[in-house]
Amino acid sequence: MAEHLQREIREMKKAILEIGAVVEESLHKAVKALQERDEKLAKSVIDNDVEIDHMEVDMEEECLKVLALHQPVASDLRLIVSILKINNDLERIGDLAVNIAERAAFLATQNAIDIPLDFPLMAEKTKAMLRKSLDALVNGDSRLAYEVCAADDEVDAINRQMYLQVQDAIRRHPDRVESLIHLLSVSRHMERIADHATNIAEDVIYMTEGEIVRHRTEDYPSQSRRV
Amino acid sequence: MAEHLQREIREMKKAILEIGAVVEESLHKAVKALQERDEKLAKSVIDNDVEIDHMEVDMEEECLKVLALHQPVASDLRLIVSILKINNDLERIGDLAVNIAERAAFLATQNAIDIPLDFPLMAEKTKAMLRKSLDALVNGDSRLAYEVCAADDEVDAINRQMYLQVQDAIRRHPDRVESLIHLLSVSRHMERIADHATNIAEDVIYMTEGEIVRHRTEDYPSQSRRV
Repeated sequence: MAEHLQREIREMKKAILEIGAVVEESLHKAVKALQERDEKLAKSVIDNDVEIDHMEVDMEEECLKVLALHQPVASDLRLIVSILKINNDLERIGDLAVNIAERAAFLATQNAIDIPLDFPLMAEKTKAMLRKSLDALVNGDSRLAYEVCAADDEVDAINRQMYLQVQDAIRRHPDRVESLIHLLSVSRHMERIADHATNIAEDVIYMTEGEIVRHRTEDYPSQSRRV
Repeated sequence: MAEHLQREIREMKKAILEIGAVVEESLHKAVKALQERDEKLAKSVIDNDVEIDHMEVDMEEECLKVLALHQPVASDLRLIVSILKINNDLERIGDLAVNIAERAAFLATQNAIDIPLDFPLMAEKTKAMLRKSLDALVNGDSRLAYEVCAADDEVDAINRQMYLQVQDAIRRHPDRVESLIHLLSVSRHMERIADHATNIAEDVIYMTEGEIVRHRTEDYPSQSRRV
């Protein structure tokens, strides 16, 4: 029975990483669509979301099945509950990638905005956070997970910076207000993706160390909230 | 043992409703602070968030304890997993109320914006959704839960409307761009609170009917995503 449970757990880890890989691909494409003004690519991200939704539902069912059949305790139970939560975060990252793709599809139809913004840096940092949180999950590596938590502050800072940059741009180019507000939305979606990656990292820390680090403002001075 | 589990479940339901009540109060105060330009009230919402954070962590620990000790199956298991997820949604609604309060605190220091916006209607609808999702949870009332899911489309529509209204206001009053962008953020926070209330309602439907309704675009035509 215990061996059977361990096999199930290995399968669940594999499955959650597969969802992670699909979500990562979706985010990568959404950012690329935005940067290269590629409406077709943006639409492929939107169309593909239904696959992620199905994966999430299947994963949750699997977690419930394993909980009911094997009645795990201690670290196995903690792992399965963490997978349930990570599953949720991944699905929402998928939704946010769709939100970015929707903005990208719109912006591709408008004149390009020739204003320097910190967006590429923000996108790189956010994608790296998601990558690292998944690596931390595979390897049960809490050190890597702590790095993700720390990086969240940097993304928050860039997001605040983007607000100022966009406000300034609107003042100088009031005729471009619509496109600029769409860009601001992208910045916020990105910041929320970074928050979800942080949630995943916090769950990895909980899984590996049994410590609840979320809401611990003393550890991450400027990360007082997760949303 | 089974009786003991039922007693624990009753306690858990009571505890999640207590969190719901505190979160609801927080949202109510944040909206009031915004509407009455009350910086002090806004700050009290921000300070109070730590209480919600603690409640969330305690609730999750309680869920894990009950899962480990009682190894529930079938509807009891489903209920506890739903409480885990609802707990998460409530905590995030608390965070979003703080985000609104932060904007309210800032806006209270600026000149009032004398532009008619659909904000009060949006706030009313969102608060009603949260209220109803909690009532649906207490009473295991899936009919009420379906109403919450349907109302989400209305809040989404108002949010889109707010985008257009704010863009238009920025064009006409470019000197107020900063305050107007803050108002736009409030609108988005509100829309996300409505999404979380919808998540809660979907979990109530799952608890009571065993049906996963999320991602079912055919049921709620314009609610294709939860974020």
